[in-house]
Amino acid sequence: MRETAVPMGAPMRNAVIDFSRMTVSAVAVVTDAVRGGEPVVGFGFNANGRYAQGALIRERLAPRVLETPEEHASADGSSLDPRAIRRLMMLNEKPGGHGERAVAVAALDIAVWDAAAKLRDMPLWAMLAEHAGNPAPERSVPVYAAGGYYDPEKGAEGLVAEMQGYLDRGYVQVKMKIGGATLDEDRARIEAVLDLLDGDGARLAVDANGRFDRETALAYAEAMGAYGLAWYEEPGDPLDFSLNAAVAAACPAPIATGENLLSLQDARNLLRFGGMRPGTDFVQFDPALAYGLGETVDIVAMMKEEGWSPRRFLPHGGNLAALACAGGLSLGGCESYPDVFQPFGGFADDTPVEDGRVGLSDAPGAGFERKATLHALLQDLL
Amino acid sequence: MRETAVPMGAPMRNAVIDFSRMTVSAVAVVTDAVRGGEPVVGFGFNANGRYAQGALIRERLAPRVLETPEEHASADGSSLDPRAIRRLMMLNEKPGGHGERAVAVAALDIAVWDAAAKLRDMPLWAMLAEHAGNPAPERSVPVYAAGGYYDPEKGAEGLVAEMQGYLDRGYVQVKMKIGGATLDEDRARIEAVLDLLDGDGARLAVDANGRFDRETALAYAEAMGAYGLAWYEEPGDPLDFSLNAAVAAACPAPIATGENLLSLQDARNLLRFGGMRPGTDFVQFDPALAYGLGETVDIVAMMKEEGWSPRRFLPHGGNLAALACAGGLSLGGCESYPDVFQPFGGFADDTPVEDGRVGLSDAPGAGFERKATLHALLQDLL
Repeated sequence: MRETAVPMGAPMRNAVIDFSRMTVSAVAVVTDAVRGGEPVVGFGFNANGRYAQGALIRERLAPRVLETPEEHASADGSSLDPRAIRRLMMLNEKPGGHGERAVAVAALDIAVWDAAAKLRDMPLWAMLAEHAGNPAPERSVPVYAAGGYYDPEKGAEGLVAEMQGYLDRGYVQVKMKIGGATLDEDRARIEAVLDLLDGDGARLAVDANGRFDRETALAYAEAMGAYGLAWYEEPGDPLDFSLNAAVAAACPAPIATGENLLSLQDARNLLRFGGMRPGTDFVQFDPALAYGLGETVDIVAMMKEEGWSPRRFLPHGGNLAALACAGGLSLGGCESYPDVFQPFGGFADDTPVEDGRVGLSDAPGAGFERKATLHALLQDLL
Repeated sequence: MRETAVPMGAPMRNAVIDFSRMTVSAVAVVTDAVRGGEPVVGFGFNANGRYAQGALIRERLAPRVLETPEEHASADGSSLDPRAIRRLMMLNEKPGGHGERAVAVAALDIAVWDAAAKLRDMPLWAMLAEHAGNPAPERSVPVYAAGGYYDPEKGAEGLVAEMQGYLDRGYVQVKMKIGGATLDEDRARIEAVLDLLDGDGARLAVDANGRFDRETALAYAEAMGAYGLAWYEEPGDPLDFSLNAAVAAACPAPIATGENLLSLQDARNLLRFGGMRPGTDFVQFDPALAYGLGETVDIVAMMKEEGWSPRRFLPHGGNLAALACAGGLSLGGCESYPDVFQPFGGFADDTPVEDGRVGLSDAPGAGFERKATLHALLQDLL
């Protein structure tokens, strides 16, 4: 297990944080299996927003896994057992308090799943579908372009030009930030983008990044509802379920939230106590922040138990691991950051966005090797 | 800001974890104020159960604080402003996902408060009382002795001898682990201890450490209720509010939980959604795990808003920082680990437990200097 911290190299900011100081953990799991003269290697990384977790991986997770190699293999001995390895990672960890640990486990877990799928010579999305008992995984997934960060030099013209660029690259639906300006200023920004989208609010989502107090969240709810937007994302603190319920009750537009709930337990509490409407709202848990792929499979099963369709799940993050979940577990779509969080964000070089959808390739594993800039970075771990 | 990771040196285990591999971050904040020829220094550490957080402190928290020294001072310039410094620590941090970050902030925040109180030449408990607007802080606090860990070589006789030792040292109420054995075995252990306590269930609490599924938690609820115990602690996953509510509804004895909820937001959700009974149950949030002392003041204010008395708050952890909160904020008492988690656990050498209570000294700050073994360890940071 090898890891390194990589700067995000993203110069923009949302309503809450400055990404220029953000880091990501890139991880490689080198197996003792050899194919074509090379060891089979799995890669992983955490998604944007929560910093690299190298010390946690080196000091806690990796030693626990490496201490009992006899527990790594799948039942038939031909691959790895990601569930068993995840269990080893979490030895001597207390329940509750799901934060950086969930992020560290996610990076390592994705690498283990990537290696396991490669050992079985199957795509990650197919292995996830098999694991979840999903008979009809998707071979292409709706994606939307997330951007629209605040930039004092950009202005409304720059914002519209950015969104035009996404449309030019095949996206149909876009998302922009709100809450870094006054409601009136945000209205002007939203209306400028709506003009570009022929006034079709369903093609535009807005994201407050958990910034608003109750009064502001409700004021925006009314305004966003009037535009008929695709969704209004993270109005208030992501754990303030009462505030979320009040906003959902007041907002004709769908609410979307969940990227900052980093465990199955937190996700379930959102559905039970957050006032979320199963036929209207969206959840956005992030496989690359919230304990990885096995946890995401469990979250989808929990959603069904709570009366939710997996189609209401649009994972945060915009990377190949999230895309494999979206396809393999038949989620409703996947976020995409066309311009930022590179090289971790984005999909395979040979699956461009077309009509707002991205195809899932037949490459073994997550397909990180099919994205040249990402592959080059990950290869440096070896 | 200086920090080091220290092994817990605690060879026992509860129903979930093995403490022999656990570490703690010890922190010193060295101010530029000089008293008696020596710089004024504040000390802090995180409580047991969540590992040292050195990398997080070094890479994220400390640089943000040290970058803007002009924001450290209190309004009159005579001391530090712990709230302002806490705000600097959290720059560029997203909301939600409260885990290791809360633990790291707690250790550093306690050191800042300790330094601030020393600069004002007042005890920490008095500064907390002033900050919270509490006109009548407590000068002595009820404490209970937590122990009763599983040990295959100890048996019921060893367990009773351990509890007898606590009574000999002035404790009146004790707590033991459950859930590491069958219910029948735990019944035998409980009944052995109850014999020692003259059959007075109100002097015995039991702690499952979040281990049980719903069925087991409910089976224990019935059994624990029949003993009339002081409380039944952490029956199930600390974030499974529905399970907690089901157990509270079924258990005549009080429920106690909260040590694994590491933020104000999580604490509030427990009170709103966990089925906790304001006149019956107890909450156990840990100042040295959950963002420190300002957050604890905010949690107490939140409790009042939600209709709870601070007397229902018995902080987890058993150290001088928790004791200062219990006294300064007039909480219901404080945990104590007489035999383990040394030298961080326990109170000042000159305030022994008497009739189940511990006095708060007039020493400036948290009084870590009044506990010789702890002071010796902390001095090594300088």
